[in-house]
Amino acid sequence: MPLINVDKEGPSCELITIGNELLSGRTLNTNAQWLADILTDLGGTVLRCTVVRDDLADISSSIKESMQRGTSCIITSGGLGPTYDDITLEGLALATRRELYVNKVALRQLEQRYNSMKKKGLIADSTISPSRMKMAKIPIGAKPLENPLGSAPGVLLSYETSTIICLPGVPDEMKAIMLRHVVPTLKRKFPKFYRLEATLQISGITESILAPLLDIVLGKVKNVYLKSHPMGFEDGISKIDIEIISSSLIRNSAKKSIDLASLALRRGIKEKGGQIIRVVNDSNT
Amino acid sequence: MPLINVDKEGPSCELITIGNELLSGRTLNTNAQWLADILTDLGGTVLRCTVVRDDLADISSSIKESMQRGTSCIITSGGLGPTYDDITLEGLALATRRELYVNKVALRQLEQRYNSMKKKGLIADSTISPSRMKMAKIPIGAKPLENPLGSAPGVLLSYETSTIICLPGVPDEMKAIMLRHVVPTLKRKFPKFYRLEATLQISGITESILAPLLDIVLGKVKNVYLKSHPMGFEDGISKIDIEIISSSLIRNSAKKSIDLASLALRRGIKEKGGQIIRVVNDSNT
Repeated sequence: MPLINVDKEGPSCELITIGNELLSGRTLNTNAQWLADILTDLGGTVLRCTVVRDDLADISSSIKESMQRGTSCIITSGGLGPTYDDITLEGLALATRRELYVNKVALRQLEQRYNSMKKKGLIADSTISPSRMKMAKIPIGAKPLENPLGSAPGVLLSYETSTIICLPGVPDEMKAIMLRHVVPTLKRKFPKFYRLEATLQISGITESILAPLLDIVLGKVKNVYLKSHPMGFEDGISKIDIEIISSSLIRNSAKKSIDLASLALRRGIKEKGGQIIRVVNDSNT
Repeated sequence: MPLINVDKEGPSCELITIGNELLSGRTLNTNAQWLADILTDLGGTVLRCTVVRDDLADISSSIKESMQRGTSCIITSGGLGPTYDDITLEGLALATRRELYVNKVALRQLEQRYNSMKKKGLIADSTISPSRMKMAKIPIGAKPLENPLGSAPGVLLSYETSTIICLPGVPDEMKAIMLRHVVPTLKRKFPKFYRLEATLQISGITESILAPLLDIVLGKVKNVYLKSHPMGFEDGISKIDIEIISSSLIRNSAKKSIDLASLALRRGIKEKGGQIIRVVNDSNT
């Protein structure tokens, strides 16, 4: 049975999160989850997340591969700071064959940031040293996105059919730039998809008993995606969460699919001797 | 300045984690962090983690791309269960051009599992239905890895220069198979690398002041990798963690590099007006 890809209808998005610490086990990749959640809420579909090290070839090739897959919106996180291994923009420049240059707007943002830090007594010297200047060097044609909580600005670059957005790796700074500058832009760009979701919490049957029922419901109900999440056994009783998702440009159409699938599942589960513990409705609208 | 890749010396590893829920924001990818941590401890170097949806083309291409990069050890997690969207082994079969067939050892493991579940009263029927049989279908030449906590066995397949290991997505089952069957195998395969690590917790200077010092220390001390993690401001004082890592086949050589870098950093930080709060030593040996 082919996979039903109704959950794939929104504009295609990919994440590229950068940093050795994400691949050594040191740091849990909460940035990726946060970004995936926001993009999904906006009606986008995150098709892939690639985690690479602070390595120029890996950063550049992962951006290039994502563009070659025709991704509408590519968001990177990490590698924008002042140290030698912050090389995301070099990777972006390489992938898009654009030169890096000192962007005047970015430089002004940095000057204001360091002047204000000096006034507050946070730093002794507000001179734009080479390490600071590095953060104002962005690819030609790219737009700096002011960082309200840190130094390194974000970057937005349109290239062929892709919009590439580079955000810092520090979670607070990443979130601030995303919410202030990126979300409003994507809201204008993305068509308004309604992505409705419900979860059936069931018990008393295992996933291998549930499996053929999922096939039947998917054969009957259009435009719906089902995914079972086994939650283990409790007092010898199997528990499963079933996610029901439907996306549509028309809210009612998505709602109807969810309701039909939910009803068919609940009936089928009872027939197989299972119980419905709870129905949770959750959606972006 | 080129990146010093001493942290890249161990056998190359990649992770491929599979599941729509990892890309919709529903689930935090803790499996990837856990696996990266174990592989790093074993002396491997995780070069990339790819997160893809339950999509045959995406699963197959991500495995293929990883093999083409010459990765020694590829670990996938997710998509081994009985439902229609559990298609990791189909993806592996496609990527390696091997047929799927019912593996007798895997089938016996499943029979034992369901018989034992029936005896315990967890299920009513232990018949191997098509949904259950599906989990015993693995690529020709692959070896099933018994799952002590669930039904779907893991899979190990050697293909060209890569060892590909497929694990379930349920964290407890993934960990159990990894610890019981995979870690002992990798311990035999991987050369014994000593990967020593120390962290300097410092305060009073920002990352842009620290940056040139990192360059100087990296120019002086061989075989060391430095990474600064800005930890924000506390009472108006900048805090940074500096990771110092060195890997070597000779423990003392790694230790010497760490000590030299740590000394040079502490001196330089004090010269720049910063303070050393704490030195944390952490290593795999």
